[in-house]
Amino acid sequence: MKEARAWSQLRSETLIETPWLKIARDVYVKPDGSEGLYTYVDIPGSTMTIPVLESGELILVRQWRYLMQRSSLEFPAGGLKPGMSPLEGAEEELREEAGYAANSWEKIGEFAPYNGVSNEYCHVFIATGLEEVGVEPESTEEIEVARLTVDELRRQIVSREIWDGMTINCFALYELRNATK
Amino acid sequence: MKEARAWSQLRSETLIETPWLKIARDVYVKPDGSEGLYTYVDIPGSTMTIPVLESGELILVRQWRYLMQRSSLEFPAGGLKPGMSPLEGAEEELREEAGYAANSWEKIGEFAPYNGVSNEYCHVFIATGLEEVGVEPESTEEIEVARLTVDELRRQIVSREIWDGMTINCFALYELRNATK
Repeated sequence: MKEARAWSQLRSETLIETPWLKIARDVYVKPDGSEGLYTYVDIPGSTMTIPVLESGELILVRQWRYLMQRSSLEFPAGGLKPGMSPLEGAEEELREEAGYAANSWEKIGEFAPYNGVSNEYCHVFIATGLEEVGVEPESTEEIEVARLTVDELRRQIVSREIWDGMTINCFALYELRNATK
Repeated sequence: MKEARAWSQLRSETLIETPWLKIARDVYVKPDGSEGLYTYVDIPGSTMTIPVLESGELILVRQWRYLMQRSSLEFPAGGLKPGMSPLEGAEEELREEAGYAANSWEKIGEFAPYNGVSNEYCHVFIATGLEEVGVEPESTEEIEVARLTVDELRRQIVSREIWDGMTINCFALYELRNATK
């Protein structure tokens, strides 16, 4: 299979910076020498964790998604902070969003959720040996923890009750990993 | 299950506009009355199509992903243009990227690939009754068409050769739809 041809970065500038992301604009050059502009989301990686209880149930969190004006049921996830490893980020998000700590972590994949617009990779973990450690009071007002069986999750994806792409993505990696193990 | 609490939009402004997307910033208000700023990608919806040949093989396209500096194998996809229905957009992308027309279209789902940062919904179609119509000469330099069996696709997701989140997502919807049919 021939390799698709590379576009290379010539220059990059940050147009906007918030605590969560930057908006950057690059000047790139194509193999034929022509130049173009690329405006995109410049963001450190993220993590998403599939917490698996001994019963086989999976833990998800429901939160309000402002941009879609709906609540969404998702695996615990979050952006990496500078200097934080993916595993450290996943541990922090599992504790802060779902109120759990885990004895055992397994990285099962990584993917780019939105590669045309954002340079983010999402690192995917399975967490087992779960222990409830409780969430901070301010979190409980905005995030609700739910336990679903694998079958319930499949059904809620088909029925579109679960509509977060990254959650569907991680669940697919989980199912494929279990099928090929 | 209690509903997560809504954050509402107070004001919105466009900070950057390109031919493909806008960067917008909203002032929102939380249920407790506090206000905040939300900077995000404001973009029309998109489509991704799973083209299924009579053999059961699926058609994917390989293209260079500038932001990740790698080539990526993905289902044909693209952003919706103003006034274009999801089906019209999917038909156009299938023809332009992969060089196929389809007799039969089935919408099997929709999801938000990146709901914390972008307001995009991706509409997912299966296309069958495929006929090769050829691609434009300029497209062939940048996009290569590939045919994969369902098993090959599963393996390439597990091995991380396929790492585009939206493609993994659509494949998961395809597998779930076939399992529950």
